[in-house]
Amino acid sequence: MTTKPAPTEDLCTAETTRVEAFSDGVFAIIITLLVLEIHRPEVAAGGLGQALIQGWPFYLAYLMAFLYVGVMWLNHHALFQRIRRVDPTLIWINLGILGTSTLMPFPTGLLAIAFHSGNLNDERAAVVLYALIAGLMSAAWLPMFPYLHKNRQLVHERVPELEFRAQFSRPMVGIVANIAAAMLGWFVNPWLALIIFGGMVAYHALTSQGLRHKGGPAT
Amino acid sequence: MTTKPAPTEDLCTAETTRVEAFSDGVFAIIITLLVLEIHRPEVAAGGLGQALIQGWPFYLAYLMAFLYVGVMWLNHHALFQRIRRVDPTLIWINLGILGTSTLMPFPTGLLAIAFHSGNLNDERAAVVLYALIAGLMSAAWLPMFPYLHKNRQLVHERVPELEFRAQFSRPMVGIVANIAAAMLGWFVNPWLALIIFGGMVAYHALTSQGLRHKGGPAT
Amino acid sequence: MTTKPAPTEDLCTAETTRVEAFSDGVFAIIITLLVLEIHRPEVAAGGLGQALIQGWPFYLAYLMAFLYVGVMWLNHHALFQRIRRVDPTLIWINLGILGTSTLMPFPTGLLAIAFHSGNLNDERAAVVLYALIAGLMSAAWLPMFPYLHKNRQLVHERVPELEFRAQFSRPMVGIVANIAAAMLGWFVNPWLALIIFGGMVAYHALTSQGLRHKGGPAT
Amino acid sequence: MTTKPAPTEDLCTAETTRVEAFSDGVFAIIITLLVLEIHRPEVAAGGLGQALIQGWPFYLAYLMAFLYVGVMWLNHHALFQRIRRVDPTLIWINLGILGTSTLMPFPTGLLAIAFHSGNLNDERAAVVLYALIAGLMSAAWLPMFPYLHKNRQLVHERVPELEFRAQFSRPMVGIVANIAAAMLGWFVNPWLALIIFGGMVAYHALTSQGLRHKGGPAT
Repeated sequence: MTTKPAPTEDLCTAETTRVEAFSDGVFAIIITLLVLEIHRPEVAAGGLGQALIQGWPFYLAYLMAFLYVGVMWLNHHALFQRIRRVDPTLIWINLGILGTSTLMPFPTGLLAIAFHSGNLNDERAAVVLYALIAGLMSAAWLPMFPYLHKNRQLVHERVPELEFRAQFSRPMVGIVANIAAAMLGWFVNPWLALIIFGGMVAYHALTSQGLRHKGGPAT
Repeated sequence: MTTKPAPTEDLCTAETTRVEAFSDGVFAIIITLLVLEIHRPEVAAGGLGQALIQGWPFYLAYLMAFLYVGVMWLNHHALFQRIRRVDPTLIWINLGILGTSTLMPFPTGLLAIAFHSGNLNDERAAVVLYALIAGLMSAAWLPMFPYLHKNRQLVHERVPELEFRAQFSRPMVGIVANIAAAMLGWFVNPWLALIIFGGMVAYHALTSQGLRHKGGPAT
Repeated sequence: MTTKPAPTEDLCTAETTRVEAFSDGVFAIIITLLVLEIHRPEVAAGGLGQALIQGWPFYLAYLMAFLYVGVMWLNHHALFQRIRRVDPTLIWINLGILGTSTLMPFPTGLLAIAFHSGNLNDERAAVVLYALIAGLMSAAWLPMFPYLHKNRQLVHERVPELEFRAQFSRPMVGIVANIAAAMLGWFVNPWLALIIFGGMVAYHALTSQGLRHKGGPAT
Repeated sequence: MTTKPAPTEDLCTAETTRVEAFSDGVFAIIITLLVLEIHRPEVAAGGLGQALIQGWPFYLAYLMAFLYVGVMWLNHHALFQRIRRVDPTLIWINLGILGTSTLMPFPTGLLAIAFHSGNLNDERAAVVLYALIAGLMSAAWLPMFPYLHKNRQLVHERVPELEFRAQFSRPMVGIVANIAAAMLGWFVNPWLALIIFGGMVAYHALTSQGLRHKGGPAT
């Protein structure tokens, strides 16, 4: 190792580039596939206009999912600006984040279908599924910050020592909020869950910007 | 900030690269997904040839949508050649542009379905939907030029001072043209809207090239 | 121009990168979308094995289309290694190549459906459609070589003067072969067209490798 | 060659970049398309919750396929860190790896459908199909290591002489395991095949990490 440090350096730099390119590709595809979840109404001739107006749950679901994935990409982007090298463990944590993110079009589409049909039981089931996947997405971020905090050699020197320490609680907020959304949505009213889902997108978006202004990571 | 300027510079340069890569990915996927909107005719045995000939609205819609997204990518490309750094606000404006662009396969497919069915009411509804989405796409570009005009630190030095000032009116043309298309298409004749849609693609394409020759931004 | 040559240089270098990234994205998506054209058999319980065996036209079509798009990417790759700068005209020619390439999943899927159904009229129609799209793909390459031959400033200096001159006839071979395939497939036997289609993929693949060995462009 | 070495060097470096970008794009799309294989249940109003619980084969198939493609990308990533230049033969071997990988969503979806239906004959057929495709994926890696072993000029100097020699047997393990899975799944019990499939993903993942720790290639 000590006899040829340059190749090691080269290896790791190359890795960061490809991990970012791969992640960018995955996020770009997720965010573009969401449009396929917008239901093309199949109606009798002359009924298209009416059907399009009734399709509002699909447009709302698209908007929420697009913002959510967009914010996830922003967070991922801000995170990797602080990372200098990747090791296999980090690649696996990153794959976990990508793997839970790629699931998003599935619950988003079902959410829209359920609210479009208007059946209360279906709305409940769809809301719980969405909370489950969104909770998994948050859970996938859990190991990232402690791992980077312990492995300083993977991080750019300019990143303050305690920066990642301050982020430990953030995925927990997502997990707790989604558990609350699932329970309120199932036992009380599915619309309460929707409000929490929308609030979580806003929370991630706002903290993403706010922390950046203070020089912290936008996660 | 003044004690370590290099990291800040590095941060921003990296950001531009990934925003471009992400945007390129999104545009590449949109433009390729359009082919999925071409209806595969499901006909009785022996009827494929006839069905393919009747599928002309799908080919026309594909051609128009492909040119539109291609021109949007050209404009985005020309814009980011002038941008040196990105900040969170710029990333959000960019997400707005991408988010409205990814919607394109939806109204394009419905436009083809409506004109394929030949029902006047469906044609009207599809034309209004297309105008709405295309108008949103134009609207998403509205904040970009004023923001860059005010934040010169994000722009390459070689870009003339008043270059973005000259672009303020361009998204407005798109919005007005699409409002006109929606109204003419609904109250007079859906074909009038199609002509305006085609004209807008040609307008964006021609100004994109024309302004480049004068050294201006191709947007 | 003469007062600030560096920015111009920077502009053009950046452009080549993004055009390549965008093209790579489009080719990667086309080649991956082809798998969606493989028909998922919907059969009564217990009939899956039989249905999979009867699905051979889909596997053959996938193989041919994958090789075709792969070879197209190889050619595109070899071409852009020789290009130093891009101008708007070159971007438009490139968009034409991408736009005809993205159509490939459509005729490929229909070809497989027609040969799976076994109806002679449908096979004829599908073969003519495929020849038409494949012919358009070849036609889209027609303006590329003359344009590069005339605009040496866009080409790397190490590329020999007459290299592009030698490529003028290559898209013509594709056009003529596809016209022949359409006519033989329609009037004589659809299988003759399939043989020509397969032969064209082999031709593009072999010349791609052969010309490289002689130091020529792999197109 | 000796008169102009710089262009040759430049050519090959550029090629590696674009081959990696293209491969990253393909893997990113495969891994994201897998979500489309998760069946959207179409049930009578109120039956969504029940249907979602019965959809476990789809979630399991998604998890397995996601891990498999993710591990394949890791292996590809580790391989190309050792490659300095690409020649046409290497590009073709790489296309073979990509072409068999893009097939994955097809058998994965059918596997889930078969186990969801619960018909033994369909489960057998789906298991054999999956083993066939997974075996082809392994077979596509067969020529890679011998070719790199013989063509040292394509490999980074820091890679030990015998590194690729040690990898010859690895694709063979995949082929043999998939043949065993197909035979056990068909003649004994489809669940045995599933266990082997899961075991192969774990094997690839574990060796990928293990070999990296010893400084060897993660393939």
